[in-house]
Amino acid sequence: MDANPVLAEFTRGNWVENRHRGAFCIADPAGNVVASAGDIEREIFPRSAIKAIQALPIFATGALEKFTLDDENLALACASHHGESDHVRVAANALKKVGLNVMALECGAHPPTNKAARKALADAGERPSALHNNCSGKHAGMLAVAQALGIDPAGYVKPEHEVQKRVRAAVEAVIGAALTESKCGTDGCSIPTWAAPLKNFAQGFARMATGEGLTPEMAKASARLFDSATSHPFLIAGTDAFDTEAMKAFDGRLMVKLGAEGVFCGALRDKGLGFALKCDDGSLPAATAMIAGLLKAIAEPDARQAEVLNRFAHQTFKNWCGIEVGFLSATDAVNISLR
Amino acid sequence: MDANPVLAEFTRGNWVENRHRGAFCIADPAGNVVASAGDIEREIFPRSAIKAIQALPIFATGALEKFTLDDENLALACASHHGESDHVRVAANALKKVGLNVMALECGAHPPTNKAARKALADAGERPSALHNNCSGKHAGMLAVAQALGIDPAGYVKPEHEVQKRVRAAVEAVIGAALTESKCGTDGCSIPTWAAPLKNFAQGFARMATGEGLTPEMAKASARLFDSATSHPFLIAGTDAFDTEAMKAFDGRLMVKLGAEGVFCGALRDKGLGFALKCDDGSLPAATAMIAGLLKAIAEPDARQAEVLNRFAHQTFKNWCGIEVGFLSATDAVNISLR
Repeated sequence: MDANPVLAEFTRGNWVENRHRGAFCIADPAGNVVASAGDIEREIFPRSAIKAIQALPIFATGALEKFTLDDENLALACASHHGESDHVRVAANALKKVGLNVMALECGAHPPTNKAARKALADAGERPSALHNNCSGKHAGMLAVAQALGIDPAGYVKPEHEVQKRVRAAVEAVIGAALTESKCGTDGCSIPTWAAPLKNFAQGFARMATGEGLTPEMAKASARLFDSATSHPFLIAGTDAFDTEAMKAFDGRLMVKLGAEGVFCGALRDKGLGFALKCDDGSLPAATAMIAGLLKAIAEPDARQAEVLNRFAHQTFKNWCGIEVGFLSATDAVNISLR
Repeated sequence: MDANPVLAEFTRGNWVENRHRGAFCIADPAGNVVASAGDIEREIFPRSAIKAIQALPIFATGALEKFTLDDENLALACASHHGESDHVRVAANALKKVGLNVMALECGAHPPTNKAARKALADAGERPSALHNNCSGKHAGMLAVAQALGIDPAGYVKPEHEVQKRVRAAVEAVIGAALTESKCGTDGCSIPTWAAPLKNFAQGFARMATGEGLTPEMAKASARLFDSATSHPFLIAGTDAFDTEAMKAFDGRLMVKLGAEGVFCGALRDKGLGFALKCDDGSLPAATAMIAGLLKAIAEPDARQAEVLNRFAHQTFKNWCGIEVGFLSATDAVNISLR
């Protein structure tokens, strides 16, 4: 297997200590590759980077209207949130609307990703619940789908459950590739994750950004989901998170979403282009440096946007004594041009 | 730059999600390479993997006798310990012997690496001290060197301090390579770390294992350090840690020590061979899978030793719901033969 290029490096003092390889693809809705690096045909697990696609059945099943889900609920369905109070509130609110509660969530519980939220919970002597799970909004959306279909929600995380069948079909329709049991795994929140070529995810996000190649209903739903996400960037991740900070800075022009193990998917909405990136070794900090560097090159950032991207494209690290020991940064391999 | 081979992979479900590249070298004391993979001339930061080398000035300066340091103190000087009670006790004991206390440590404080120890400390309402820092034993040893020299220990972590000059000279003597300011960084515990070719570290550990290529004093000191480490494997790391479990299983035949950012150095003492390994992306779990797989191939393990190595060469991972989602394992590229 050919090696993907080095897209990020950690430099300690004056010498490179770690190298992170990866691939990225920028595509239009027809699947034309505008720019790329590395093996974009290799099937990767998108993980949480495609929550916006996985949220489409909320529309197709009529759950949206039936349960009067709002933009906040939709944004959280697309989110890997940090378990801060607003995230927990919106997740609980969605569950209440669909006539369920935290007990119905099958994502498992983990402490809030946000440090202050984690400390507050511990200081209050409370244990984290499934509402704090970064995927609780997505799961609330999946429960809405089950409730709208009038089926037993129990086991909605299993591949054979009707909810996951709908989710799988939506992903296949959007990315234009068949998903297969031979390239399937279980995600951190217990739903199936299906591997597909990196370039298909880029194309899928371009389709969602433009509506091209989608049914009118799916195009409308996609626009609403991207609008919800980009207008509620805090709900997508949380305090100081890259996805949140970047989407906030770009005022709706940019959709960007991380996935576990070093994945990013998103779209330059004004250009009608989708992108997908995977860090080979699964490092999220390295993938963040890569995508921030890539967006610097392709998203025509203004000064404020560039400041945010620079912060993540070049991350400094301190040791236990507070001494700055090195930096993780994108390499020149992401400095591409779309023209 | 040529890509190193993939030495470990994480498989989710039935599909490879992450790939970890790296290089390793097995060498004899003369620097003959017995086996290798990847670029072994590339300079890497050894980090904590060479604490045994960095401990040599304890002997050369007479600190050992002057302060009656014992095998426990020596083992902890070679350790990246997990902050459990025995580790803290031995670090405090070494400091007391040299006439200093925790205030003299310049490694910084961090919570114990061991989860139970971390919880016990938090439950007791205590803050972690520099004694809990995984490097406290090494730092106590460096303070012993300063005290034996009769110089001001303050600033002993700085490259220009006599202690670090002695440490640097010892490393250069053992690995047979000059260290240079142009390939230097600051370690997590604030001392300098110098990059050198991977193969030189393998050779250096072979020299320490055999005494060949070293002065008689250094050879004797090396044997004592390896004996101390391999006869006190718990002090080298801690409960359930790879270094501890592997050295325990091999009953003195094996010296193995991790370094931050995916490094391992060590020696097959009975074969007189040294080894060094670096995971390109800095992943410690991946590097652990690599070294465990490599030792399985080269260390002629019996059933009990193989059981320990297998546990780390093939690590299973569960999600928040306790569902097994995948495994991290060494690839066939480490299945080499020494004959």
